[in-house]
Amino acid sequence: MTGTLYGIGVGPGDPELITLKALRILQAASVIAYPAPESGESLARGIVAPHLNGAAEEIPIRMPMVQARFPAQEVYDWAVGELGAHLEAGRDVAVLCEGDPFFYGSFMYLFARMAERYAVEVVPGVSSLTACAAVLGAPLASRNDVLTVVPAPLSEDELKARLTGAEAAAVIKVGRHFEKVRGVLAELGLTEQARYIEHATMDSQKILPLDAVEPAGVPYFSMILVHQRGAAWK
Amino acid sequence: MTGTLYGIGVGPGDPELITLKALRILQAASVIAYPAPESGESLARGIVAPHLNGAAEEIPIRMPMVQARFPAQEVYDWAVGELGAHLEAGRDVAVLCEGDPFFYGSFMYLFARMAERYAVEVVPGVSSLTACAAVLGAPLASRNDVLTVVPAPLSEDELKARLTGAEAAAVIKVGRHFEKVRGVLAELGLTEQARYIEHATMDSQKILPLDAVEPAGVPYFSMILVHQRGAAWK
Repeated sequence: MTGTLYGIGVGPGDPELITLKALRILQAASVIAYPAPESGESLARGIVAPHLNGAAEEIPIRMPMVQARFPAQEVYDWAVGELGAHLEAGRDVAVLCEGDPFFYGSFMYLFARMAERYAVEVVPGVSSLTACAAVLGAPLASRNDVLTVVPAPLSEDELKARLTGAEAAAVIKVGRHFEKVRGVLAELGLTEQARYIEHATMDSQKILPLDAVEPAGVPYFSMILVHQRGAAWK
Repeated sequence: MTGTLYGIGVGPGDPELITLKALRILQAASVIAYPAPESGESLARGIVAPHLNGAAEEIPIRMPMVQARFPAQEVYDWAVGELGAHLEAGRDVAVLCEGDPFFYGSFMYLFARMAERYAVEVVPGVSSLTACAAVLGAPLASRNDVLTVVPAPLSEDELKARLTGAEAAAVIKVGRHFEKVRGVLAELGLTEQARYIEHATMDSQKILPLDAVEPAGVPYFSMILVHQRGAAWK
């Protein structure tokens, strides 16, 4: 019997925002794997650290620091070999995913390579999308609003087209694209209807109007929520 | 000291998909409230039933069965009085919300009425959006995809406009609008790239291609996921 590969959403950052199901699978797995930078701590592992019992073998999937648009695919090829060996030996492997595995998560790179060959189960998690709305204190979308999720790396023209007319929008993966996004929102007259959220639900959480944001310090895990009609900000 | 009003996301249906934080607040609250039909069981209460210890007072917020576009607002006015009295008496009140409170949830009607007067905290939950992707076995959105969430009650023309060019889309609140949505997707040539999901993560879960769906039986809690480029369905 081969093992099962679990992609488990660990939630947006607060360790208490993990689900009972993710916690059960995490604590029962023989092997846990997680994305990590080339050197240093893994964010996903940090989120679940209070819940680890030390029993599992840990496999960090380390991404080289490159300016590439998308992660180095050879790292995932390597990970398939490592995780696959455990699965072949009958051991379950839990891959930790920030937020939700299928909401713009890097788990898709493993899923695409392994889902045909192994039993794979995805455990959904609280995504950054709804976590940001919660800490902001404003409904993400309601009634018959259309909600658009737009990755910040898109071109200025593309961002403009996608954000025009969206009742509610979330610009994700902001990072070094902050100034471009702020410019687009200003052009569309949406500056006042937008809020910047960084590290939602973590101790380092920040919520700011756009003009108070220092662009050089904007991390990848940040988001701008826009409510076309404005919102009752708390 | 007045109590705190909590809007807690209980997740999409599987009782194990509640977060540790929601569970803690639920089990400590003096009062729990939840949306319910005019007669019969509340879906949100059903989701958390295995976790209830019987200690809390329960307040069902019962919606009359009407064909109105949006819930009867006088019911929320009544609920504000009921919940407000408990808060004034210093008791914490937890309002149970299917999925996530701020993702098209009816909690917004209470939030809008009570957030200025009382301490309110929203606990995000696993939304139907990512739960449907997980059970379908296909990433919701990845890389620089734009993801559009479109409520099915919109007009045919509006649906057509919003679904054109969206790399990934979720049509929510399908219910009695199924045939209209199926027609629009067929016109756009997206039938094969779409899947219907009903009651994701519950025992009654169904996943179907669009032509296998019986329109008369489609519940409100159903969704159609569309991947413009197609997806590697499991």
